[in-house]
Amino acid sequence: MTTLTILKIGGKVLDHPKQFEQLLHTFITIPGEKILVHGGGKQADVLLKKLGVEPRMAEGRRITDKATLEVVTMVYAGQLNKHIVSQLQAKGCNAIGLTGADGNLVLAKKRPVKTIDYGFAGDIESVNAPVLLSLLRAGLIPVCCAITHDGAGQLLNTNADTIAATIAAALSPRYQLSLWYCFEKQGVLLDATNDDSLLSSLSWQDYQNYRQNQQIHGGMIPKLDNAFRSLQQGVNDIRIGNPQSLADGRATQIYLD
Amino acid sequence: MTTLTILKIGGKVLDHPKQFEQLLHTFITIPGEKILVHGGGKQADVLLKKLGVEPRMAEGRRITDKATLEVVTMVYAGQLNKHIVSQLQAKGCNAIGLTGADGNLVLAKKRPVKTIDYGFAGDIESVNAPVLLSLLRAGLIPVCCAITHDGAGQLLNTNADTIAATIAAALSPRYQLSLWYCFEKQGVLLDATNDDSLLSSLSWQDYQNYRQNQQIHGGMIPKLDNAFRSLQQGVNDIRIGNPQSLADGRATQIYLD
Repeated sequence: MTTLTILKIGGKVLDHPKQFEQLLHTFITIPGEKILVHGGGKQADVLLKKLGVEPRMAEGRRITDKATLEVVTMVYAGQLNKHIVSQLQAKGCNAIGLTGADGNLVLAKKRPVKTIDYGFAGDIESVNAPVLLSLLRAGLIPVCCAITHDGAGQLLNTNADTIAATIAAALSPRYQLSLWYCFEKQGVLLDATNDDSLLSSLSWQDYQNYRQNQQIHGGMIPKLDNAFRSLQQGVNDIRIGNPQSLADGRATQIYLD
Repeated sequence: MTTLTILKIGGKVLDHPKQFEQLLHTFITIPGEKILVHGGGKQADVLLKKLGVEPRMAEGRRITDKATLEVVTMVYAGQLNKHIVSQLQAKGCNAIGLTGADGNLVLAKKRPVKTIDYGFAGDIESVNAPVLLSLLRAGLIPVCCAITHDGAGQLLNTNADTIAATIAAALSPRYQLSLWYCFEKQGVLLDATNDDSLLSSLSWQDYQNYRQNQQIHGGMIPKLDNAFRSLQQGVNDIRIGNPQSLADGRATQIYLD
């Protein structure tokens, strides 16, 4: 079975030239087929502020009104996506930048208003695996950003971790599939201030224990919940780390048991 | 031979909801394969002003410094391209938005500084016909914006008319190829204030005469020069008009003799 690696990168990595350069190197040296998925919340905040639009968050998710949607679309699909694509092209990697609207790649639904109105935030309904496979077969390397659409003309802001996980689940029947989450830390740390507390691997059972002891908490919880869900959905290999630790194999590997 | 129509639209059409709606309708009803190419200078000017960057032009072309490049990339590749793609998707047209960096589609060279330094303006070197053909064969409808790259990591701002013409020339050996320029007027008018002066067709010889008499002048000159050059490069059918006149066949048809 052919291997496919989906590498998801956060906005912080994009902001540090040295980390970004290492990230590009890590990505191009991955053997087999590959897809890059990126966010860019940090960069969106910069432009929002310049334009006098106050960034608003609720429970760690962005509240996306009309003005915010326009800004995140420009930043994710324009500024960041095309920067990444042009840098990969410069290294001989035939990247193609995409939102979920392009090729109807990721269809989503505007999040229903319950207690919080997230505005134009999209919850994914489906991934267009045939189009992704066509692009991969044509030798193209998809670079997907955190914008989706509802199929009725509305663009939607969608969490990049979730896009990566959903694409992984959709393609897992076809590939030996790895899903790598790249952020600024070396991996899952039991003590955020101590790099020596890096876990080389993390099982479902250990995760439950660390979570109960509050040794794993905060922003790692949704990341790891997503990771374990992806393993259940057929993804073969999940790692969490920074550009360097993912390249040299020290990143935390997540497994079910 | 399969037909391929390349429709180039200017920023003004994107700014008028009614014209834009008609444009989408005109585009989706074109039979055979098709590609949309768009600019967006007008919309870029809006964001440039909001961000306090003064738009600068020389001889009808934008001077693209670093800050301007960032803005035009966001507006063309983000805001406008994804708006067009999502609207086409809503009408069942499987559009895919692209810059020249995506799939290494349009390779350009930073314009050499002679009397004027145009900054990050790109003159096209080559079009990647195989990638375009792969996308078309996969049933995708390319929507190309006015950003290219130099293959060494630099994005470049490139005239959308020229992109349309160069793609047309590159694909003309493979297709019965039409190139349609869509702007706000019904076609080539001998009197800009009088719609009745619309030319149904314009030959090379007539063009020379009208040009000498100053009946055709200003911004139409580079448009028509490009059009006649495209005919010489093997494009079969060239029309200039607005969304409505292109749809109902009243747009000006350009021919060599």
